[in-house]
Amino acid sequence: MAVYNFSSGPGVLPDEVIKRAADEMQDWHGSGLSVMEMSHRSPEFISIANKAESDLRDLLQIPENYKVLYLQGGATGQFAAIPLNLAEENDVADYVITGTWSKKAYSEASKYIKSHIAADAVEYNKVPREKEWTLNKDAKYIHITSNETIEGVVFDSVPATGDIPLVADMSSVILSEPIDVSKYGVIYAGAQKNIGIAGVTIVIVREDLLGSAHRTTPSIWNWQAKAKAGSMVNTPPCYNWYLCGLVFEWLKDHGGITEIAKQNAQKAKLLYEAIDSSDLYNNNVAVANRSKMNVPFTLNKPGLDQEFIAQAKQVGLITLQGHRSVGGMRASIYNAMPVEGVEALVRFMNKFEEQNG
Amino acid sequence: MAVYNFSSGPGVLPDEVIKRAADEMQDWHGSGLSVMEMSHRSPEFISIANKAESDLRDLLQIPENYKVLYLQGGATGQFAAIPLNLAEENDVADYVITGTWSKKAYSEASKYIKSHIAADAVEYNKVPREKEWTLNKDAKYIHITSNETIEGVVFDSVPATGDIPLVADMSSVILSEPIDVSKYGVIYAGAQKNIGIAGVTIVIVREDLLGSAHRTTPSIWNWQAKAKAGSMVNTPPCYNWYLCGLVFEWLKDHGGITEIAKQNAQKAKLLYEAIDSSDLYNNNVAVANRSKMNVPFTLNKPGLDQEFIAQAKQVGLITLQGHRSVGGMRASIYNAMPVEGVEALVRFMNKFEEQNG
Repeated sequence: MAVYNFSSGPGVLPDEVIKRAADEMQDWHGSGLSVMEMSHRSPEFISIANKAESDLRDLLQIPENYKVLYLQGGATGQFAAIPLNLAEENDVADYVITGTWSKKAYSEASKYIKSHIAADAVEYNKVPREKEWTLNKDAKYIHITSNETIEGVVFDSVPATGDIPLVADMSSVILSEPIDVSKYGVIYAGAQKNIGIAGVTIVIVREDLLGSAHRTTPSIWNWQAKAKAGSMVNTPPCYNWYLCGLVFEWLKDHGGITEIAKQNAQKAKLLYEAIDSSDLYNNNVAVANRSKMNVPFTLNKPGLDQEFIAQAKQVGLITLQGHRSVGGMRASIYNAMPVEGVEALVRFMNKFEEQNG
Repeated sequence: MAVYNFSSGPGVLPDEVIKRAADEMQDWHGSGLSVMEMSHRSPEFISIANKAESDLRDLLQIPENYKVLYLQGGATGQFAAIPLNLAEENDVADYVITGTWSKKAYSEASKYIKSHIAADAVEYNKVPREKEWTLNKDAKYIHITSNETIEGVVFDSVPATGDIPLVADMSSVILSEPIDVSKYGVIYAGAQKNIGIAGVTIVIVREDLLGSAHRTTPSIWNWQAKAKAGSMVNTPPCYNWYLCGLVFEWLKDHGGITEIAKQNAQKAKLLYEAIDSSDLYNNNVAVANRSKMNVPFTLNKPGLDQEFIAQAKQVGLITLQGHRSVGGMRASIYNAMPVEGVEALVRFMNKFEEQNG
């Protein structure tokens, strides 16, 4: 039985990537070594890191004046690192709250600077309209969470922030569709959704934003120091980094971001149509802000959730429970989820509704 | 040709562990999933984490009143997290400087508290005698680096610090010989030497030291919050954690710490005897403080270093160059380095001396 894994992260990886990692595990390219035991300063690992760098730059068309950093600590680590790298204690930064993760980013930043809520969607089912945001003209940056993994709320356009750098947590949406990097000051993302495996966080930062880190920034999160050291201020998570590279190669081999974006649109359309055409399933996110990566839904009949999850698991559709904080269901349909997985889910949902609707 | 990897970290892993990781990569225990794509909250991953916990506790005989945490950011991350978790800005902590890493730990702590140098070996070839340390009686903790990876200097006994918690960086020595955990307040170690792969850091902390974290401690490094959340404040580096578990099982299957300590003593004896009985090779660390894990040595003839490294590589003995900051050679002979690897190195050293001595 095929297993389709709808986990929100760590999430599904391409079968081809897992197979290649297994094949290369005991002897990487005839080196006699596993990537897991290579010195990060060895020519072998440097070649892996360089290939990942050029492939990611190619995939996202990253401009020359942006650095790519590989860090540890997840996006949650960067919730602290962002204010520490970009602002001083008395500086202000504006946060747009669209769900659980942007709220957490705001709270963490409040330990270090005067973080300010520019807008709060409150019910987390839409992105507040830009003209309703209350922005500080002297804000050091404006922070958004491009895609809220828990609530399934996505920005449908890039906010125009003028001279104020836009900082975006793209953990659950990066590499899923084309982006214009030049519209952002900082893009950051935990790897465990569309990039690779948990344990590495990518930061893409415009060079002019480097060099202002607060004195108390932990060394491993000082972006300027990391940029100078090629992300090797200390021993990086080498194997995790290598996995990122395998995913980048897989994406390039399959048509790059343009092609995967088409597939992602198709998968999301299938699933939202199934929800909208049913009497049992419901998704209450504003249509324009519906995430193509994380699709939360509820059952309109009480008490059926556990039965839905259990029966789905029996046919190989796993990790469909919603986040602990909101309950219900959630299907995360990242790049590596094949359309067949979404089709199988839709078939199951239809059948379950027939039997329980 | 067998390859023996003397890298200081990421370092050699047991062949059996790498093979098992490769075998289990595409389908972990019939789950249909790779460990790399499992939700950290799945029953499968929880079982992996629990097994690692009980095996590590068993191996190190960790008392009940100590918590084991899995963190990100390496030991260098903990250089910041330690003062943040244990002290306030105006508090003092004593640092004993025995090499590069203890000095870095001291410098990073100075960003957050009044860190104080209690003793400084200066030349980094011995551990200063305890009676010469200048300790503060109101220090919040005393920090040591049990084994200096770059200089190959190890503590030959556990300092008696009375009521003041002893905090020890054991990155390059943990699991290599029995330790009495109860003599320490905090033990921490990056995984990439004797525990597993880069990307996870283990902290073993006495429970009464939890709960004093400074307000500005990044959430992911708040030890108390981590302890409460079973190290899952945010998505942990799951695959790295899993590898730790495989190494713990391997150690237990091979006789545990007592047995590996015997092998480590034998390997170190072989190598130091080869150095001491030669006219070409030199190690200037005080005999009592010679590391059994990292053996730096120099050649008494100038200009031969590159030749030594190149010829060694030709016979499969790799990553023998010393750290960039000190030059010379270094053989790291962690748990996973078989005695055959050290024997091969000694044979090569003898032959090289015959030809170049």
